[in-house]
Parts: sequence; C-alpha cells; structure tokens
Amino acid sequence: MIRGNDPILLTPGPLTTSLETKQAMLRDWGSWDAAFNQMTGSVCRDLVDIVSGGDQYVCVPLQGSGTFAVEAAIGNLVPRTGRVLVPNNGAYCARIVRICRYLNRAVVDLAIAEDRPATAAAVEAALAADASITHVALVHCETGAGLRNDLEGIAQVCRVRGKGLIVDAMSSYAALPIDVRTTPFEALVGASGKCLEGVPGMGFVIARREALAASAGTAHSLAMDLHDQHVYMERTTQWRFTPPTHVVAALRAAVDQFIAEGGQPARGARYAANCATLIEGMRALGFRPFLEPAVQAPIIVTFHAPSDPAYEFSSFYARVRARGYILYPGKLTQVETFRVGCIGAIDANEMRNVVAAVGATLQEMGIGSVAPALRAA
Amino acid sequence: MIRGNDPILLTPGPLTTSLETKQAMLRDWGSWDAAFNQMTGSVCRDLVDIVSGGDQYVCVPLQGSGTFAVEAAIGNLVPRTGRVLVPNNGAYCARIVRICRYLNRAVVDLAIAEDRPATAAAVEAALAADASITHVALVHCETGAGLRNDLEGIAQVCRVRGKGLIVDAMSSYAALPIDVRTTPFEALVGASGKCLEGVPGMGFVIARREALAASAGTAHSLAMDLHDQHVYMERTTQWRFTPPTHVVAALRAAVDQFIAEGGQPARGARYAANCATLIEGMRALGFRPFLEPAVQAPIIVTFHAPSDPAYEFSSFYARVRARGYILYPGKLTQVETFRVGCIGAIDANEMRNVVAAVGATLQEMGIGSVAPALRAA
Repeated sequence: MIRGNDPILLTPGPLTTSLETKQAMLRDWGSWDAAFNQMTGSVCRDLVDIVSGGDQYVCVPLQGSGTFAVEAAIGNLVPRTGRVLVPNNGAYCARIVRICRYLNRAVVDLAIAEDRPATAAAVEAALAADASITHVALVHCETGAGLRNDLEGIAQVCRVRGKGLIVDAMSSYAALPIDVRTTPFEALVGASGKCLEGVPGMGFVIARREALAASAGTAHSLAMDLHDQHVYMERTTQWRFTPPTHVVAALRAAVDQFIAEGGQPARGARYAANCATLIEGMRALGFRPFLEPAVQAPIIVTFHAPSDPAYEFSSFYARVRARGYILYPGKLTQVETFRVGCIGAIDANEMRNVVAAVGATLQEMGIGSVAPALRAA
Repeated sequence: MIRGNDPILLTPGPLTTSLETKQAMLRDWGSWDAAFNQMTGSVCRDLVDIVSGGDQYVCVPLQGSGTFAVEAAIGNLVPRTGRVLVPNNGAYCARIVRICRYLNRAVVDLAIAEDRPATAAAVEAALAADASITHVALVHCETGAGLRNDLEGIAQVCRVRGKGLIVDAMSSYAALPIDVRTTPFEALVGASGKCLEGVPGMGFVIARREALAASAGTAHSLAMDLHDQHVYMERTTQWRFTPPTHVVAALRAAVDQFIAEGGQPARGARYAANCATLIEGMRALGFRPFLEPAVQAPIIVTFHAPSDPAYEFSSFYARVRARGYILYPGKLTQVETFRVGCIGAIDANEMRNVVAAVGATLQEMGIGSVAPALRAA
C-alpha cells in the first residue's frame, strides 16, 4: 500500500468500522471460558432490546454471513409442509426464493418491479388468493436497489391473518425503527457487519420464543439448527461449535458504541443525513437516483450510470477508489447503475468527499453528460 | 481486566494467536474489491500447496466454524444415495454421524474405544462387510481424547477399494504431514483458527476438482453449497455471500508466518516439543496421560483428573486461569479428565509455565494424590 489510509467502504457491509471496534479484536478469547460467554450473552440481550423483544423473544447467534442466518430462519421456523410467500423486488428477495427451493419449502414468488415497494395490499391480496401460505418472508430493505419495503403494514396483515412473518432485516436492523410491540414478527434476521457497524462473520435470528421452541427437529442442517444452538446455549452459555470469537468481541464493542451514540434513533438520523447529503451532491453533478424519494432507504443509493459513451464502470470504480472511496456495482438487471452506501462509521463529511471524488473522476474521464433524463430532454 | 496480559489459551482452537495476526484485523476490506479477492485467492492457493494438491485439488473457503465445512463436505460430496462409514472413537466422529443423520445420508457407525485408533484393518473389514458403503469419513486427530487415527493406512484402503475419503483434519492440518500424492483423499476439511494459528470464523474444504465438479446439485443448503461457491469464485474471484473479511486478512497474515516458520515440518516440530514438555512436566507432578504415547497426537493431551477428593474441575480451572492459563475440560464419557492444548502461538516455555501453574494450584487446593494409578497401587 502506498496510501497511508485505507479507502472508505461505501458498500452495504462489510463497511468501514471504527478503530475502537477493530481494536477489540486484538485479544484472544477462549470459547469455553466464562468471560467470553458472558460477552455473547450480553450482546444477545442487547440485540433483543433493540427491537423491544422483552422476554418473548430470544436472540440466537449463528456463525457465518447473514445469508446463513436467513437460511437457518427459514429452515427452522417454516415447517417442512409450510408454504412461503416472498414479495420479490430484488436480488435479496430472489435469494430467499432460492433458499426455499434448496430446502424444499413450497414458495410463492410474488414478483414486484424493482423500483416499487412491497405493500400491505399486495401481500393481503396474495394471502387471500392462496390460503395454504403459512409464512411471509420479507426483505425489509432490499439493497439490490436500496428500497424500503412496508414492514409495518405487512406485519399487521400477517398478524390479522395468523401468518408467520420472517423479516430479513440485514441492512435495516439498528438503522430503521423496528419494535415487536407494534410490528410483530416470528423471526428477524440481522448480521454483525451491517448497521451495527461490527465486522462480518456472525448472523443472528431474533425469534419468538414459542415459535423457536416449536421448531425442534425441523432443521435441515446440524450447523444451522437454531433450536439446537439455542437450547445448548441456554444450558451451557456456550456456542455449540467454535464461535468467531474476535468477531463477537468486535460486535460487543460496536454495540457499546451504538448505545453511546443514542441507539437506533441517532444511528438512523446519521445515516439519513449521509443519504441526503449524498443525493444532493450527486444531483448537483447531474446524477439521478434510481428510486423515488418515498421508497429510498437511507442505506444505499442506486444511481443511473452516466449516459456518456466515455463512461465505463470498472475504470470509474478504479479512479474513485484511487481517490479514497470504494463504491459498489449496480445489481439491477435492466438498467446500468452503480451504488453508493451511506452506512458505516462515516458521516456527512465523507459523503461530501465522495461526491468531490466522483466529480473529479468525471472530469478526468471526460464525461460531460451524466443523466440519461437530461440526454432525453 | 486487572491483569495486563490476557491468559494463554491452551485449548484446541480458538487458540492464542500472534499479535501480528491480530493486527491484520485493524483494516477494513471491501468484499467486492480486487485487493480483498486477491487475498482470498492467495490464501486458497497456499492451503492447497500445504497438502501438495497441485492442479487436481481446489480449496473452497466457507464462512462459519469448521463444523460448517465438515457438514458442507458431506452434503456436497456424498451423493444422496451414498453410504458413509465413520470410524468412531470420539466426540468429533460422533458429530459426523449426527451430520449424516441430519442430511439423510446412510451411515455406518463403526464404534472404537476412545483410547484406540481407527486402523486400516478395521476400515478394511468394515468395507469388506458392507459393499454398499461409498465413502469413509475419518477424523484425523480426534481431539475428544487427543488421538491420532491412521489416515495414511486408511487412505490406501479407500484408494484400493475405490471409496471416497473425506478427512476431518480440523486439528491436524498444517501440524501433521498430509500429502495427497501419498495419502489420496476426496476432500479434506480444515479451519482458520486451528494449527494455521489464524482466528476462528472460516472453514475450508480442499476437494478433488473432479469430485467437486460431479457434486453439482447435491447440496442440501444454499449457504453450504460448495460447488456453487467454487463456481462463483472461479468466475468472479468473489465470495457468494459476505465473507468474514477480517478473519481472512488474519489468516493471510497467519499463513505468511506459517511459511516463514518453515511450514508444516517446523510447526509440527514445535507442537511436538510443546507436547513432550507438557507431558514430562505433568508426569513429574504425578499426572498420567489418558492415551498411550503411540496414539497421542501433539495437539491436545488428556490427563486423568486427580483422584484426591479435594479436586473439583471448576475450581481447578479458575485457579489455573488466575495464573494465566486457560485449560479445557475433558470430553470423555467414562473417565474424569481434563485437557491441555499444545497448539497456538506458544512454545515449550509456556508449557513449563502451565505445569508450574498447575503445580501451585494443586498445593493451593491441598491436593496430595494426583494419579488414579498410584492410588490403586
């Protein structure tokens, strides 16, 4: 490395973490030792508290990425005879459909345009049309485009109709408000390396205690058997299999910083300010966000790629990276886009800086025309 | 913490890592970025080289603990109609039996006493008795007792009889010699946080390229689909799902130190010296190892608990811990024991120190009689 500082990650996890969080990994922990297991227990209690889960919910941590925890939630909490409705407006929804197929769970794939939110009305209609659906699996923020689905409305529909709701809150948990008392769910899935600003390596499922208890014997996998993991932890305080000790220690430090910052309201406000600053600056350069403001989550923003023929993503990426910022490619099938994350241990100043870096890169690449809309005008 | 230094982990992973390895986690990496993906690729190539895998073998990394990778190896490489022979002399063998049952793979559980090794003759006889067995799943070092099974002999039996051999080398890989040219296998499973002296959070499967290619569509799980992970990585250089970036960076640093130390021969020699020093010191205190020297692997040593009624493990553990060393409980069903690991970024000096700590603890607890054999005499 020639640069003294690493580039800032404007990606939806892994993201830039604080030095304090990383420094928590400078110690080794014994996985059988009480000091470590108390740390795991305290993190799990805090994660339940963030959604006001009280005694009715438990947090089951799981080694691996968030997708491992999503698969575990489906594989444990949806009975083998269950049927899952997946409102599908992006890559992470499609991944849940794929998981259901691997696990031989019947799935209803409710296609929605990738710039439109999943609504309570659409879920209501799908449930009315097929009484055999037992569960709804909803991606709260679909980071494929950066869109926020109507979790609150869909949770009410599920409650009224008695369907189990499984929420993939990977990129929303800790950033957007979620409260089980008003937004009941069967299970919610998150991960260490997203808006909690820990490092990646651990997922978790916050499950309704009764639903988890009822799931004994359902799992398709020993490693992903959440019920077994939970029962063993309750009895021994330990993980069943070697935990990612340093990742857990970093998460403990990250959650401490999250609480010190002011919890979800403060973190959500910082990300919202990041997002607004980013969009304002990029608009001034001529960029147009892919989504309407009403459905844009303050997590990651998809921008239309410049229409100028001089634009080419990999060169654009490399030049912005050389200026200290790592962007993310687009994940849409129909339109050429790129994405810029708003999350991590960063503030609005970094957003102004990345806009400056993008602006300088456009000049360097000789890109005059940015917005396709302007070209059409 | 009152102490300036953390206790030394004498546990079979997580273990004590070097400061250099931990410091590699002080940076954040983008999972889409070429710099990170080159690191993953270089680690995987080095891991294949350690067993002289050449072009015929590939390394597929997997998020999670080593058990996740063991399950993935079984779930991918054993066809759904396969039948697995598990020579079973301990807790980790029993775990493989349990995995096979979760995955609906027929399993032949070959019971062996926990102080006796799995031998080529026993496997030969079991294969002769049941021609429908397609695979043998062998734990190389069974850390339940600390025993080394006859991998080389069993590999020859599998080769001659045309059975697929899956090796759980979790606690032997990088410490004991394994060479595919003389010890052929279908797949070998290891993890970041064992004798490579990285931090926990990543497993890996070194698979015969042809066997992996033939396994398309077999996996029971999206997250654990090794074939899919491999194909995606070959095409994009990226992990399919968020990798444990800091764990990978620590592993890169740990493998660099492994190579600098002199590779497997040097590491194995250090652990053997640790083990010999430990056993010699503990014998001088009156302790008796559970295993005969001929089957003792230089990874972790099981000692009979003191026969003195003043002995009680949790108090013994806490007092040794207060002196700076974290021991491990026994994992045997019939005999009261405790275990002391010989692996990690430690040398014979730490072994002498833990023996001194154990000796002082015995005095403090008023334990006079240590060895059950002495009591019976």
